Amino acid sequence: MKLYDFKVAPYPRRVRIFVAEKGIEIPIEQVDLFTGQSRTPDFLKKNPSGHVPVLELDDGTCLAESVAICRYLEALHPNPNLMGRDAREQGLFEMWQRWMELELFFTVEGFFKHTDPTFKPRFTQYPGYAEDQRLEALERMRRLDRELANRKFIAGDRYTVADITALVAIDLFTGFAGQPFPSGLPNFKRWHDTVSARPSASA
Amino acid sequence: MKLYDFKVAPYPRRVRIFVAEKGIEIPIEQVDLFTGQSRTPDFLKKNPSGHVPVLELDDGTCLAESVAICRYLEALHPNPNLMGRDAREQGLFEMWQRWMELELFFTVEGFFKHTDPTFKPRFTQYPGYAEDQRLEALERMRRLDRELANRKFIAGDRYTVADITALVAIDLFTGFAGQPFPSGLPNFKRWHDTVSARPSASA
Repeated sequence: MKLYDFKVAPYPRRVRIFVAEKGIEIPIEQVDLFTGQSRTPDFLKKNPSGHVPVLELDDGTCLAESVAICRYLEALHPNPNLMGRDAREQGLFEMWQRWMELELFFTVEGFFKHTDPTFKPRFTQYPGYAEDQRLEALERMRRLDRELANRKFIAGDRYTVADITALVAIDLFTGFAGQPFPSGLPNFKRWHDTVSARPSASA
Repeated sequence: MKLYDFKVAPYPRRVRIFVAEKGIEIPIEQVDLFTGQSRTPDFLKKNPSGHVPVLELDDGTCLAESVAICRYLEALHPNPNLMGRDAREQGLFEMWQRWMELELFFTVEGFFKHTDPTFKPRFTQYPGYAEDQRLEALERMRRLDRELANRKFIAGDRYTVADITALVAIDLFTGFAGQPFPSGLPNFKRWHDTVSARPSASA
């Protein structure tokens, strides 16, 4: 098994945190997206979309999508459990994982991609759209602050894959997207401090 | 168990098709998004985002997200299998499900939401962004046509949740979004005819 990674990108970070939480050792190879290493004919055979992460299995199968890789690793290594132990947990953790992705990560990403100069040569950026996405992300963080008033983690009392997605989203927002951590959200801040203090956060 | 549905919307359609493929009977209640039935205080307790589908379990738990509902039902009713029988299948089907969502469904949805007059009062529409999304969706359909040259269904030789997501996407494109079915894509057309002929497609 080998994980193709790009250290600075958010999607592979999801997988690295997941792998660290599981305590699995997987050989990692860096693929520099900036210098076109994901667009070589060899790499496009692994992932025709030219993205990382990609998990190459020993039989040559390539899982070329971050959540798909987590799903595979969860099935192989069920403990510690990150995606739900029974039907109800699997449904609830998936719901929170999807909410954190659709409502938080994608709005942050929409803002970032439509403002950051890196993406200018690749597609047309719409500043108005970017601003709408930024405001929507902030609104979701305010709602998350209220939701976290009575529980420790995103989906309940234990750390799950939904925490990973939310962490990657807010760190993209305050990192490459250059925004301040929103003030006046004490529960959200406490949650962020807690999950950031886990060794997996720096994986 | 009760499913809150809105007959014309694409996200609940995903769940209805999934339920039909499983052969499960679930009581359904319609929630008219157009007349604000998903914004009542009672409904917002079930889903604070004010969307359908929502699956209300007998203990009152609400799974308020389409893929989360499918995940729950898959765990309760593993046959016929739609999300993978072992770790490798679970990873591969998730990858195709996610690709169909991120690369096809969301680009179609982006085009639709930024052109359809229904959404005008709710957020600023960017026609340039809409057109970029339309072109990206068409490009993904052309790639899908090549991918389907040597297999019957999206993720391989059998029908999976990835077929449901792709079907809902193309039917939104040619339905409410008012676009013609793209010409010159014989494999994609053959696949669409095949999955549309299943009884679940009209669920």
